Amino acid sequence: MSFTQSHLKVGELATGHELNVPIFKFTGTDANAPTVYIQANVHGAEVQGNAVIYQLMQLLEQSTILGDIVLVPLANPLGINQKSGEFTLGRFDPITGVNWNREYFNHQVDVQDWYVEHQHLDDAALISAYRSHLVAACQQRLDNPWGITSGHLLAVSLQKMAHEADVVLDLHTGPKSCKHLYCPTYAHDRAKLFSIPYTLMIPNEFGGAMDESIFCPWWQLSEFLRTQDRELPVAVDAFTLELGSQEHIDLHDAKNDALGIMAYFSAKGVIEEHVAPAQMQRFGCYLQDYKKYHAPLGGMVEYKAPLGELLVGGEPLANILRLDKYGTDQVLTSLSLPDDCVPILHFASASVYQGTELYKVMTNLFEL
Amino acid sequence: MSFTQSHLKVGELATGHELNVPIFKFTGTDANAPTVYIQANVHGAEVQGNAVIYQLMQLLEQSTILGDIVLVPLANPLGINQKSGEFTLGRFDPITGVNWNREYFNHQVDVQDWYVEHQHLDDAALISAYRSHLVAACQQRLDNPWGITSGHLLAVSLQKMAHEADVVLDLHTGPKSCKHLYCPTYAHDRAKLFSIPYTLMIPNEFGGAMDESIFCPWWQLSEFLRTQDRELPVAVDAFTLELGSQEHIDLHDAKNDALGIMAYFSAKGVIEEHVAPAQMQRFGCYLQDYKKYHAPLGGMVEYKAPLGELLVGGEPLANILRLDKYGTDQVLTSLSLPDDCVPILHFASASVYQGTELYKVMTNLFEL
Amino acid sequence: MSFTQSHLKVGELATGHELNVPIFKFTGTDANAPTVYIQANVHGAEVQGNAVIYQLMQLLEQSTILGDIVLVPLANPLGINQKSGEFTLGRFDPITGVNWNREYFNHQVDVQDWYVEHQHLDDAALISAYRSHLVAACQQRLDNPWGITSGHLLAVSLQKMAHEADVVLDLHTGPKSCKHLYCPTYAHDRAKLFSIPYTLMIPNEFGGAMDESIFCPWWQLSEFLRTQDRELPVAVDAFTLELGSQEHIDLHDAKNDALGIMAYFSAKGVIEEHVAPAQMQRFGCYLQDYKKYHAPLGGMVEYKAPLGELLVGGEPLANILRLDKYGTDQVLTSLSLPDDCVPILHFASASVYQGTELYKVMTNLFEL
Amino acid sequence: MSFTQSHLKVGELATGHELNVPIFKFTGTDANAPTVYIQANVHGAEVQGNAVIYQLMQLLEQSTILGDIVLVPLANPLGINQKSGEFTLGRFDPITGVNWNREYFNHQVDVQDWYVEHQHLDDAALISAYRSHLVAACQQRLDNPWGITSGHLLAVSLQKMAHEADVVLDLHTGPKSCKHLYCPTYAHDRAKLFSIPYTLMIPNEFGGAMDESIFCPWWQLSEFLRTQDRELPVAVDAFTLELGSQEHIDLHDAKNDALGIMAYFSAKGVIEEHVAPAQMQRFGCYLQDYKKYHAPLGGMVEYKAPLGELLVGGEPLANILRLDKYGTDQVLTSLSLPDDCVPILHFASASVYQGTELYKVMTNLFEL
Repeated sequence: MSFTQSHLKVGELATGHELNVPIFKFTGTDANAPTVYIQANVHGAEVQGNAVIYQLMQLLEQSTILGDIVLVPLANPLGINQKSGEFTLGRFDPITGVNWNREYFNHQVDVQDWYVEHQHLDDAALISAYRSHLVAACQQRLDNPWGITSGHLLAVSLQKMAHEADVVLDLHTGPKSCKHLYCPTYAHDRAKLFSIPYTLMIPNEFGGAMDESIFCPWWQLSEFLRTQDRELPVAVDAFTLELGSQEHIDLHDAKNDALGIMAYFSAKGVIEEHVAPAQMQRFGCYLQDYKKYHAPLGGMVEYKAPLGELLVGGEPLANILRLDKYGTDQVLTSLSLPDDCVPILHFASASVYQGTELYKVMTNLFEL
Repeated sequence: MSFTQSHLKVGELATGHELNVPIFKFTGTDANAPTVYIQANVHGAEVQGNAVIYQLMQLLEQSTILGDIVLVPLANPLGINQKSGEFTLGRFDPITGVNWNREYFNHQVDVQDWYVEHQHLDDAALISAYRSHLVAACQQRLDNPWGITSGHLLAVSLQKMAHEADVVLDLHTGPKSCKHLYCPTYAHDRAKLFSIPYTLMIPNEFGGAMDESIFCPWWQLSEFLRTQDRELPVAVDAFTLELGSQEHIDLHDAKNDALGIMAYFSAKGVIEEHVAPAQMQRFGCYLQDYKKYHAPLGGMVEYKAPLGELLVGGEPLANILRLDKYGTDQVLTSLSLPDDCVPILHFASASVYQGTELYKVMTNLFEL
Repeated sequence: MSFTQSHLKVGELATGHELNVPIFKFTGTDANAPTVYIQANVHGAEVQGNAVIYQLMQLLEQSTILGDIVLVPLANPLGINQKSGEFTLGRFDPITGVNWNREYFNHQVDVQDWYVEHQHLDDAALISAYRSHLVAACQQRLDNPWGITSGHLLAVSLQKMAHEADVVLDLHTGPKSCKHLYCPTYAHDRAKLFSIPYTLMIPNEFGGAMDESIFCPWWQLSEFLRTQDRELPVAVDAFTLELGSQEHIDLHDAKNDALGIMAYFSAKGVIEEHVAPAQMQRFGCYLQDYKKYHAPLGGMVEYKAPLGELLVGGEPLANILRLDKYGTDQVLTSLSLPDDCVPILHFASASVYQGTELYKVMTNLFEL
Repeated sequence: MSFTQSHLKVGELATGHELNVPIFKFTGTDANAPTVYIQANVHGAEVQGNAVIYQLMQLLEQSTILGDIVLVPLANPLGINQKSGEFTLGRFDPITGVNWNREYFNHQVDVQDWYVEHQHLDDAALISAYRSHLVAACQQRLDNPWGITSGHLLAVSLQKMAHEADVVLDLHTGPKSCKHLYCPTYAHDRAKLFSIPYTLMIPNEFGGAMDESIFCPWWQLSEFLRTQDRELPVAVDAFTLELGSQEHIDLHDAKNDALGIMAYFSAKGVIEEHVAPAQMQRFGCYLQDYKKYHAPLGGMVEYKAPLGELLVGGEPLANILRLDKYGTDQVLTSLSLPDDCVPILHFASASVYQGTELYKVMTNLFEL
């Protein structure tokens, strides 16, 4: 199968240069097959998603594609190109500090009101009308006569494209991280398709991220319809895939994640070929059991707990080295957690302020 | 009157150095007089509040002080000391991007529940019990066994002190700005005491700022008690004073603002002396009429509209210069707004991305 | 007269986007008239030069142009577009810290050697051959098989263009600054043509800046030829114009500076029209008498000495406010200098570390 | 043996907080034994030297110390505490961009002149007088009535201490790096004592770094004396140890490097115990054969060549991934070098601008 390339303007720099993102589209052969939107690198340092898109496109070129697939690598040119020292300062808008992945539009649809005018529609028409509503709301946001922030301009431009699809994959990474997946609880059975060992099960709450901006309005619709005694499964799938550590490109490993996405495509009917999911143990954890541990003191950090492995309660998580305290028992502080957990990610730097988010760990895991 | 000095630890750096803030306390002679908490420079570049505290302390040393007054200049040492290039990058946590003035604790008191156990108390005792509850909740937040972020550690440490006072003043500035005041609507008559020409009337909504973290729980209590047919005026005053532009110290002008604060103290009975408010026109504007205008294109900016003066609809707000378009009619774009307004502040830099917040303007002003 | 527009690629970002700069060229009618190269905004926050180029091009369109004039506004797209907080972090490469105006190529021509092969040439041919040598050396630098740094790539690409001209003007600004000119001592009489009151007379020493990269090799040639009893005036003029403060665009004031450049053009025969220099007092100062004063302590700064005016020895330069010292005589430190001077520029921010370059002042001034 | 602790003030922040560094001193038992100065973490992200000092102090506490040993971990508090995003922006002064390790004082002693007055001294007295001269020159620099920059204030304060010692070790790391040593050619035989496989042999040229600031004046003296037919070996040893990658603490590995330093101490007679150097192959390379390879294009980088291993000419160094070019042969560019080399370090981030320093490689290696 072949593809077409275009680009979308998402902003303008002080010099007048356009910020634009490349868009690749594979057109499917079956108008009824689910359509897909995939983006990568919204956080500037989280580059591995581009490598996964590279491998995925190579696989797709060899496949029979049923549903349209839109791929948007390098989705945040301002964030990707913003260095500060040797690293990419791409997590937030350098002017405002706002996290690029908290800028998506919160529809807050008045579903009850909307449904009054659309209840006569059959499911397919209802879905189509609702989708049109979401796309139009994004466009209206973009057209605000007072303008919108640079971050909203980027995010809502991407979101508008994503609303057109039935499946949305947002490719991220952690700082230093093992692979994990953000999955809405209604889609828990799809978590076993990707090549990702740890899954966070998240509720229907909008916090500003792409995946939430996509599934929340649909989930809300389904929940409302249930109160009207009408069953409509959530019409979209939206996931955030955390593909390891930032500031790292590994083409070989990217192939594994591309194959995991192909397995998902296969199960959903996006491609014709059968691709089996990887054989691996997979664990889930509810969002409320995903804990952040903050540095109780400032200092130099030796990270001890391996990522993606069980850490028994009381075993060493990290050491904080404080040379200014040499000669006292505070020169080296061994940190641990009281209960069993799986450390999923840790802070990127080897020195911390008091309060720096040091580790995020899953507790109360269950096998998927 | 004289004062005592102490300091509070609010964090720890990677080298182990303590982050601490200086605290000055004037002890009042009347235990029934209102007590005051004033802080400055929570945003690192907004330094003028320190000059105002300097002038205010000089005035207080010559005054008869009835209620305790706690003054905390240089309140955010990490933000103040964080340069990036020649300017102070002090608006947000350099690691997380979170605005230092959005980190205060949202109490979300279940007032109904709380009142069940406290309804037998008279007003004074009720106020005292509620205050204790707020202080204890801050302490509990600080004691979280998983730790808290550097930003919360700073903010909640300051907030806990502020909850002890009846009056809280948070001294800020805009980027390039005229003086203006954030005032909760219930306190609108106090807006005429300060030496500040423009006042934003804000509702009972928590957005993360210090002033809101202080007054919201009390406002909520008053509103709840009204449903119980018990009248209790909001027991605290909390304001954010925006004292002009950031990156600017002017001791002479600071004296004017110190005198405005003295006029407020005088009216509230914090000091014994009579200090009359400055004679000046003062205007108000409801928060929903305070508008942000974002740059519709990237480029170099010539700011045209003076701050703190009426701008008639259609008159030039700013020019955007685009040398890359020389020879076309896009080389110079004159921006204007359709309706009358008073520009209150504009962006600090002379070049913008598309979407940069260019101006904030008050519309639908009314005289106070 | 009309102009042509093109652009030059000077780099490539992580997303693959090209860094390119716009180039405008007015072609002169007299092949023997001096040719000109003007660039602006190599430091990202120093934007006013673009406004001057805008006004200058408007004047040139009404003029009879004899010598070719190349204008390069927005010359450093990476620096211009690099924000950090609300300001432009455009003084140095964000990765390496190297000042963008210290990256030009130091030819270090072995003039003696070069002259052996070219001594038979007449002056015009000698100049032409030397120019070719300089241009070729830049190209060779750009073609280094190990690559060159991003900063060199930009600087040497611009320098190569500039070597083709007889006159090079590099438009900068100070942080907070009055207008001043960097002028090589051999060109001292041309300093009276621009609309600039203060001139630094600089020697034949390469420190990495554009102007030096242009005039040093020619000055060196002239000095060598003098030892060979051959008189050849320095064949190029190169100046750095400091057009006031950074982060500021003022189109009206830009017109004044454009007219000053027109007066210079007129005197040099670049344009046919007669344009008289502005009537104003102008002062000079040798570079060794241009002094940097560093903050003797950290603190908040109230800048007291106006820029561009005589400051009598002992008069206040600035106050350092130290609220942590309130109650001691160290709360306010008044800084002054022992001898008379003219403060030319001061630091951009209102708070400093110990050692921050606070003011630059001219001493031992003389009237031009 | 036990030690004493003190600290040195090296600056002051905008809030007034002191910048100070901890100093640990072990006092030796033999006044004639060589004395040592060791510092770590002058570049803020290069933290592993602190871990090495930690292990070294633990070893020294068990040893018989002959010569005084001064240890200065956490030597640059401003650099260490300066985060920008999740990483430490500690390579250069955030205001000026100047590399913290290019700020040391260049003595440029007029040795000929100095020697006229000191030639009558015997070797020991001559060394003592020269040392006093160096220390006094640093003090004079610090006492400049116009002040000195924050960077000089730090660097020269440290340098002044270091001049008092016979041996100076400056503990750094690369970005992503294998271990290597900067060694002045006259000290080549000492390169075999440390636990470091690769050594750069550097000439007598001052580039601003600590090691050079220490050995250059002494080397210059020795070279001058040779012209006077007086043999005086260079009286000091000064090395920069590059202890792996930045943003990484590994206490176990730090022990190896501490033992390497102990082997050096043993050989020099700083400690009484015999400590044998580690058995390992060690290679040298002259500085002119240490090559920087710059990214020939912008893009995402997959680093392929392992550090510290021979890379045969033509073998892949790195891949540059350019998703914007998908569908062309420019989507993936494999970079290689024509000749054999050992890659020593590579850039820290996985995305680059055109011109970013991608790899540094040793060529023409020889076994030590």
